[in-house]
Amino acid sequence: MTNTEPKRRGRRAGGADTKTALLDAAREVFVERGYEGATVRSIAAKAGVDAAMVNHWFGSKENLFAQAVLELPFDPVVLVARLLDGPPEETGDRIVRTFIAVWDATGGGPFAALVRSVTSHEGVATVLREFFLHNVFGKLAEHLGEDAVDLRATLCATQIIGMGMVRYVLRFEPLASVDVDTLAAAVAPNLQRYLTGDLTP
Amino acid sequence: MTNTEPKRRGRRAGGADTKTALLDAAREVFVERGYEGATVRSIAAKAGVDAAMVNHWFGSKENLFAQAVLELPFDPVVLVARLLDGPPEETGDRIVRTFIAVWDATGGGPFAALVRSVTSHEGVATVLREFFLHNVFGKLAEHLGEDAVDLRATLCATQIIGMGMVRYVLRFEPLASVDVDTLAAAVAPNLQRYLTGDLTP
Repeated sequence: MTNTEPKRRGRRAGGADTKTALLDAAREVFVERGYEGATVRSIAAKAGVDAAMVNHWFGSKENLFAQAVLELPFDPVVLVARLLDGPPEETGDRIVRTFIAVWDATGGGPFAALVRSVTSHEGVATVLREFFLHNVFGKLAEHLGEDAVDLRATLCATQIIGMGMVRYVLRFEPLASVDVDTLAAAVAPNLQRYLTGDLTP
Repeated sequence: MTNTEPKRRGRRAGGADTKTALLDAAREVFVERGYEGATVRSIAAKAGVDAAMVNHWFGSKENLFAQAVLELPFDPVVLVARLLDGPPEETGDRIVRTFIAVWDATGGGPFAALVRSVTSHEGVATVLREFFLHNVFGKLAEHLGEDAVDLRATLCATQIIGMGMVRYVLRFEPLASVDVDTLAAAVAPNLQRYLTGDLTP
């Protein structure tokens, strides 16, 4: 279990700078080399810090990826806890609002970069699978006590990834500009059905 | 209005070869240069035929794109007519089955190439917008007599594009391998809601 808040190992001058430098370096190196090619060592080297700082600030390469490329301001464990915090039947609504808030804040640039790197680097699909399926949507479906957890998780991925593609990469109007309330009203019930609805033929 | 069946202008030896050569050339040129850079002239030159053959066999650059890159075996007008042919409440089901049949037949390779060219060439987003929104989903929503046609069309695009990304580009299991009946049972009601359901907050 990783954690975004580093354990304090005594006083560190310029700690926040180190964290920012690692995020900037990771963003570049992940997009340039894909997930597998982007070693912790190469990211630390680009940031000009010791490789141990990655573990210190992010706990894992996976969490560094989540924060640097998906720009999620918290690690997957915290994300799932937040998404589960409320009425189960409103989980879809919390998912849409959380992802849109995070991605809107950055104009979707990192999402577009991610899609570019997905199509050119096999390894990025692997980490996205790990992130979306095992760490987020799979955990949600599991907690909500449903069957067919893996299918439900992949269906949620189709909707969230498709929404990101249309809003930030393709920029189809009106979806690219609608406010989050309109978007949540439209998309959340569909996500909710993928999580807890009847999917049998 | 374009048509996939060419008007016969007398007997043409090797006509089918010309058509195939144009499809192969178009696939390469669209992916290499994006939609705008891929002129009819450059595609014809690559295929070693006269530029008039594009109009003769495909009617328009847009239809050539639909057939060469999306690998749709019919032009958008025919596609919409097929999707509308049946009970309105089963339109979502027909959409899923039609796109999956077409894309499964080619292993999704062209879809992956399309996504690659979308992120590197602005013009491809434009033709995809034209294709998905105006020619297909917008027409469907319009025919089904709904309000908010443009929002509905973009929402359909999020689901179809997301499904294509997860099945053919990211290849997340089990969604990448489930049979079309399972996929249609899961996804069709969501598409149907985007087309004809209540989307208001």
